[in-house]
Amino acid sequence: MGNKIDVIAFDADDTLWHNEWVYYEAKQKLIEQLSPEYNPKEIERTLNEIEINNLKHYGYGIKSFGLSLIETAVSVTDGAISGDEIKKTIKSIKEMLEAEVPLIENARQVLEILSPAFNLMLITKGEFIEQKPKIERSGLAGYFQYIEIVAEKNNQTYLDILNKFNLQPERFLMVGNSLRSDIIPVLEIGGQAVHIPYEDTWFHENQVDPNQEIGFYHEIEDLSKLPGLISSIHDRI
Amino acid sequence: MGNKIDVIAFDADDTLWHNEWVYYEAKQKLIEQLSPEYNPKEIERTLNEIEINNLKHYGYGIKSFGLSLIETAVSVTDGAISGDEIKKTIKSIKEMLEAEVPLIENARQVLEILSPAFNLMLITKGEFIEQKPKIERSGLAGYFQYIEIVAEKNNQTYLDILNKFNLQPERFLMVGNSLRSDIIPVLEIGGQAVHIPYEDTWFHENQVDPNQEIGFYHEIEDLSKLPGLISSIHDRI
Repeated sequence: MGNKIDVIAFDADDTLWHNEWVYYEAKQKLIEQLSPEYNPKEIERTLNEIEINNLKHYGYGIKSFGLSLIETAVSVTDGAISGDEIKKTIKSIKEMLEAEVPLIENARQVLEILSPAFNLMLITKGEFIEQKPKIERSGLAGYFQYIEIVAEKNNQTYLDILNKFNLQPERFLMVGNSLRSDIIPVLEIGGQAVHIPYEDTWFHENQVDPNQEIGFYHEIEDLSKLPGLISSIHDRI
Repeated sequence: MGNKIDVIAFDADDTLWHNEWVYYEAKQKLIEQLSPEYNPKEIERTLNEIEINNLKHYGYGIKSFGLSLIETAVSVTDGAISGDEIKKTIKSIKEMLEAEVPLIENARQVLEILSPAFNLMLITKGEFIEQKPKIERSGLAGYFQYIEIVAEKNNQTYLDILNKFNLQPERFLMVGNSLRSDIIPVLEIGGQAVHIPYEDTWFHENQVDPNQEIGFYHEIEDLSKLPGLISSIHDRI
């Protein structure tokens, strides 16, 4: 990480704001609704299985998860669930889409420190219709020169973004909680990366081939350590 | 339309291949499933209402429509529908996502004629997870130098695309069935446009303020007329 940095890019979900709790709460609601008649462990197992199966059809995001919740309710009850019960799940899908966006501790302060010295970018994966309102509700949009909502975070995605804004990879630093989406592709295209693990990161997000050689990246335990790390390699702040 | 053209861009759904039938069929399945117990006209009315209401939460696309189908089934039956019946709707959502992609008449031949003379671009609106497999299944991907899947088709979207590939708006021609998405924004940024109406275009797609002044664009009745139109303004084919 010897190069100076022009742009610091941030992942959003579970890096700048908490996101997984929305999924967790909706799942818990379904479990509460169906238990004790149906076994909570069994509901959870079925939901996981259905989610994985549906990934190739539906992709990620709240609507996909919502359809999997409904399918789980139908499957666990062996088709016995009523429309009235399904209605509750439809309601919780809509609540997910309108949920508050609680910031990660120190997120605003860190952006406040970094934004006078660097161009900041937000790169978030997901559907426009889901991500756009969250960015607005977060109240953080004003700190970013660039905001990119992308369908996938792979090497080509990052190359396209760098190309779009005429940026050099070696002067680009990505900060995020997912090795698979935020760290590995950025290293592979010659960029720099800082990993901040999020305790509840969905296992799929960090599924990395154990034999895969990952280049050098920094890891910090929380966002508040970011300005210190950056000033250690850079004298602009 | 006096300028020469470097790039011809095509909308995909209902311009190069039929798409609306997938929605129509899924709706008909639900109607058949619930009638004669429930009134077909009433089912349709409820679905339209729910779709419009959900647009702001869900956006467009099959998953959104699917969630609206399920909500319609619950609403029309006043919660009396069973999980077994909901299962059928879940099945039809998955079938929609894997449906065949029937080409519009002459689509392949027209691309065959135009591709040696122009750079062709595909610009389709929707979710990556839905659009990407359709593009692949269409068998037309090979004709396009550029393929862009976008969340919205507004002025900024087209400006970003032109900028990304270093294209001049006055030498860019967009072909599509939607005034709102394919024609108006392109004219507004100084591009050229050809409208090919699709009989079943969903009313929202062509909702245009009647007082809005739309610039000059061409209209042809079907895709087969496109090479003739282009050769009348261009001697490259």
